[in-house]
Amino acid sequence: MFRKMNKLVDNRDKVVDDMIQGILRAYPQSFRMAGTSGRAIAVHQKKEGKVGIVIGGGSGHEPAFIGYVGAGLTDGVALGNVFASPAPQPIYDAAKAVESGAGILLIYGNYMGDCMNFEMAADMLESDGIAVRRVIVNDDVASAPRSERDRRRGIAGEVLIYKLAGALAAEGASLEKLAEETQSAVDNTFSIGAAWSPCTLPETGLQSFEIEPHQMELGLGVHGEPGIKRVDMMTAHALAETFSKLLLPELSLPIGRIALFVDGLGATSLMEQYIFYGKMHDIMVNHGACVAESLVGNFITSQEMSGLSVTVMQVNDLREKALRAPSDGMGWVRHTDLCNVMRSGGSQ
Amino acid sequence: MFRKMNKLVDNRDKVVDDMIQGILRAYPQSFRMAGTSGRAIAVHQKKEGKVGIVIGGGSGHEPAFIGYVGAGLTDGVALGNVFASPAPQPIYDAAKAVESGAGILLIYGNYMGDCMNFEMAADMLESDGIAVRRVIVNDDVASAPRSERDRRRGIAGEVLIYKLAGALAAEGASLEKLAEETQSAVDNTFSIGAAWSPCTLPETGLQSFEIEPHQMELGLGVHGEPGIKRVDMMTAHALAETFSKLLLPELSLPIGRIALFVDGLGATSLMEQYIFYGKMHDIMVNHGACVAESLVGNFITSQEMSGLSVTVMQVNDLREKALRAPSDGMGWVRHTDLCNVMRSGGSQ
Repeated sequence: MFRKMNKLVDNRDKVVDDMIQGILRAYPQSFRMAGTSGRAIAVHQKKEGKVGIVIGGGSGHEPAFIGYVGAGLTDGVALGNVFASPAPQPIYDAAKAVESGAGILLIYGNYMGDCMNFEMAADMLESDGIAVRRVIVNDDVASAPRSERDRRRGIAGEVLIYKLAGALAAEGASLEKLAEETQSAVDNTFSIGAAWSPCTLPETGLQSFEIEPHQMELGLGVHGEPGIKRVDMMTAHALAETFSKLLLPELSLPIGRIALFVDGLGATSLMEQYIFYGKMHDIMVNHGACVAESLVGNFITSQEMSGLSVTVMQVNDLREKALRAPSDGMGWVRHTDLCNVMRSGGSQ
Repeated sequence: MFRKMNKLVDNRDKVVDDMIQGILRAYPQSFRMAGTSGRAIAVHQKKEGKVGIVIGGGSGHEPAFIGYVGAGLTDGVALGNVFASPAPQPIYDAAKAVESGAGILLIYGNYMGDCMNFEMAADMLESDGIAVRRVIVNDDVASAPRSERDRRRGIAGEVLIYKLAGALAAEGASLEKLAEETQSAVDNTFSIGAAWSPCTLPETGLQSFEIEPHQMELGLGVHGEPGIKRVDMMTAHALAETFSKLLLPELSLPIGRIALFVDGLGATSLMEQYIFYGKMHDIMVNHGACVAESLVGNFITSQEMSGLSVTVMQVNDLREKALRAPSDGMGWVRHTDLCNVMRSGGSQ
């Protein structure tokens, strides 16, 4: 059945290809296609001697994942269909395009399809004699108990991991060191989300999940995977309290410095995100955290889903510096705490 | 009547204040309150001898307008209630906080309330002996015919104008020169939008406009002001063709270099925006334009309205350089065409 939908597309079977064409037109000097699949994109100019970082996942989460390819970020990306893993070939192609002797780090979220395909791509690269390490992001505390962390899904925390790894690689970290520090950052990154209206999948016109008006589902996954509880729509403050009760037990004590990141899923206004951020910030500070880095906005979306997630990364000097390092990708919103740096640095 | 709504807020009478608290917590080193109204925000550190630029408008359009305060952008902002003009006092307070002897440029959209209140603030500043110039943005070609340009509303083009003026001021332009170049850029900036689902106003729970499913309204204003035509939902390509027919007659010939900017209104996915951008880009190029600068994303939103606008600014060397200058504000998404600059410049 052909469902009408309120989406601005041309051919629903080609939304990913059409999107890629738009992106290549918007940033002709930044990106190039890698290989011939049409689904692998690399930075225009690889940096000799630097570890190449390749990421990827399903489309439909824009600006993820291509938004985190760029200077001080990652080097290549493989794009799947909407909410579907990329195939091994584009992952391999992206890696081959950016590899320059220092090896390849693959970073991806903990989903069955992604794990399988990135592992196959790693095998292909290793057959070519390329050193490969993999880091799997699994920050979603709602998706499995702490004792089964390797079953947890990857959600917004992935963005912080890309940024961190990108900064370390840009500084010249070796593959071993990069993989170790990136994994260590993943181990200290925890997220929880909620959603209160679904998105329409552009390839089918179907909705990603069903929910009554004025209800929200805690822990719902970014593809509509079931969460842990369905409740009446909460206030921002009550949701922040609820989230903090789920996140705080995950953290090492004393909590110390953290990066605090609110990610909108698409249709949740920045106004709501900032209201929520303020409440979450105060709760974390009241529990002894020092917020060293803040991030608020739509970094990994689920089309026009309404909802948001909060991510806490416990940071040390290395992580804080990496998260604040200069970078440039279309998904990484400039945050104004760099203002004073720029003003005094006189880059204008 | 109290309407339930699917929004994450605490107190619907205080959404703007609560949002400001969240923003100040997220960026403590960037912003400070100016005056005592609670609705004026300035950069933390004013730059001596530089013209101060103050912007403002209704809240609910986030990241506008506060997202365009920062290094290489503007210096202060006055925030109104949702979709309502700020009062003269916070405009005055923001200006006083950033004024440092070189005068003040006020930039705002062409709405009756904004015009009245910014003009009153200008009078107050001039009474203090401060030199003030005002530039009113009126880029929306759907809101009045070309012969009555001074009746046209300001929409997404405002973002390009903030960026341009901010870059020129950072380079040391005098108030006269800055006002002249900014006005000249406004005169060469044209936008048109469409929307296909309303937003819910967080203060009342009411919807901003009514529309049947699978219908779109061409030229609808960012606050739900009536547009020029209601039509069946179009494909991306058909909408780009329709928009180009309305924009092309506005441009000086030969078209030459342009900045091409697609702005999402909130709930329209970046995937759709990029698909649309690609079509619009090709049409403009086929009409002889050279796209010198691309911008795609949610820069001025209407909460979670579904829709987008396209803006064309005809650029010369000065405008192109200004639009590409380094800057840092939470609303200005980094675009990856700076990648190569950063890579070769070795800022990492």
